[in-house]
Amino acid sequence: MSENVGFIGLGAMGAPMAANLIAARIIPTVWNRTAAKAEPLIAKGAKLASAPGDAASPGGVVITMLADDAALESVVTGERGIASRLGAGGIHISMSTIAPATARTFAKYHADRGSTYVAAPFGDEPGAANVVKLCGNFLIASALEAMAEAQAMAKKNGIEPAQLAEMLGKTLFACPVYQRYGEAIAARRHTPAGFKVPLGLKDVELVLKTAGEVRSPMPLAGLVRERLVSALAKGRDEMDWSALALGVLDDAGIE
Amino acid sequence: MSENVGFIGLGAMGAPMAANLIAARIIPTVWNRTAAKAEPLIAKGAKLASAPGDAASPGGVVITMLADDAALESVVTGERGIASRLGAGGIHISMSTIAPATARTFAKYHADRGSTYVAAPFGDEPGAANVVKLCGNFLIASALEAMAEAQAMAKKNGIEPAQLAEMLGKTLFACPVYQRYGEAIAARRHTPAGFKVPLGLKDVELVLKTAGEVRSPMPLAGLVRERLVSALAKGRDEMDWSALALGVLDDAGIE
Repeated sequence: MSENVGFIGLGAMGAPMAANLIAARIIPTVWNRTAAKAEPLIAKGAKLASAPGDAASPGGVVITMLADDAALESVVTGERGIASRLGAGGIHISMSTIAPATARTFAKYHADRGSTYVAAPFGDEPGAANVVKLCGNFLIASALEAMAEAQAMAKKNGIEPAQLAEMLGKTLFACPVYQRYGEAIAARRHTPAGFKVPLGLKDVELVLKTAGEVRSPMPLAGLVRERLVSALAKGRDEMDWSALALGVLDDAGIE
Repeated sequence: MSENVGFIGLGAMGAPMAANLIAARIIPTVWNRTAAKAEPLIAKGAKLASAPGDAASPGGVVITMLADDAALESVVTGERGIASRLGAGGIHISMSTIAPATARTFAKYHADRGSTYVAAPFGDEPGAANVVKLCGNFLIASALEAMAEAQAMAKKNGIEPAQLAEMLGKTLFACPVYQRYGEAIAARRHTPAGFKVPLGLKDVELVLKTAGEVRSPMPLAGLVRERLVSALAKGRDEMDWSALALGVLDDAGIE
């Protein structure tokens, strides 16, 4: 099977996923826009494709983990794109967070060429996985805003934000999102970035676009969007998207 | 010790707390504005005080669990209030969610009379416990808004809100707030109320008041406040505060 598995997109998410495949003895043919990022995987046995389409083989499987709709489109379409290369019986497992409408378009594009587009982890309806992933990221962003507002208010009332975060993370909000981000926000530790501000903004804008298309108002998503835009305005592009919390502190006049 | 323990406020929170005391063989003298609510406790051995101050004895302990600042003030102050009755060495354990500023005023009021005001569960600074409790309730309200917006958007994309809530409650947000409220919002089940809309509004308004006093902007708290005001405008006074989610569905044109 290893002969027929491709992996495209070796960023912060993709590289460890591809490494996991290798650990499971599935040796993929990999491709990344910046080829240097493939080196650690090649050292572990992966083969390097010279073009995205070369990571696909007829009837094989290609997994993609890319930054956005445009990046995915650039590897999917065209005569040398993975959809055509996969051909009849081929499967494209798409792990990227993209617009549900784009996912539906890709599903049709593959079907027209005899291949199948699977939006992981929800396979039934191509757009559904993306809606669910967008919902998850929206809920995280909302929690970041809520934690930041609570911590700023607490701090100005003489309470240590780290203590507040710890107490809430052990009781009402004993789940990783609140525990990890709560501690990071309290410590104002937003580097190294797990998920950078521009990617966070991209996802929240996809949330708003998707919600707008179906006429579903999301004022909280709008609020979070402005926080992320402000983070970019303040040069926080390389920080983790939890740096939106710094904007809350700025607004409260906290140094 | 039982002789010297009083318990005031036998509502949805206070009554089971007083029952727990009795189960632990600490038999309190109880008082409630509506005396009938004391009957189940009296059946278990509690004594009924004829006035709030009568629940307090010199040097004893009184626990209060009341709805708001005004209710607490009505039992604390005055010649027959519990602060004066407790006198030197007496302790007032306040469990109510009140304004931090009110808590500090009460602390001073007790100290002037030789008794001690303890704001549970954080005893060091009288206002701190209330700030922490307000932060907790603010984070819950924010999560309600976020879940409602996500579910409405998902529903209009053809995804069952209950499935979305279940998936997120098992993964990113595996904590009770998201699991229980997520399921309730998906089922639009807001009765019987655990915490009614007017009480939720009271707490969120306390959050905003406290934040305003220390000059800490909380736009998300403002958004949630308007949702709760709208819930009252639509006659949802007897529903659980999670009914703010119905306003999100209304805005999205979901029947």
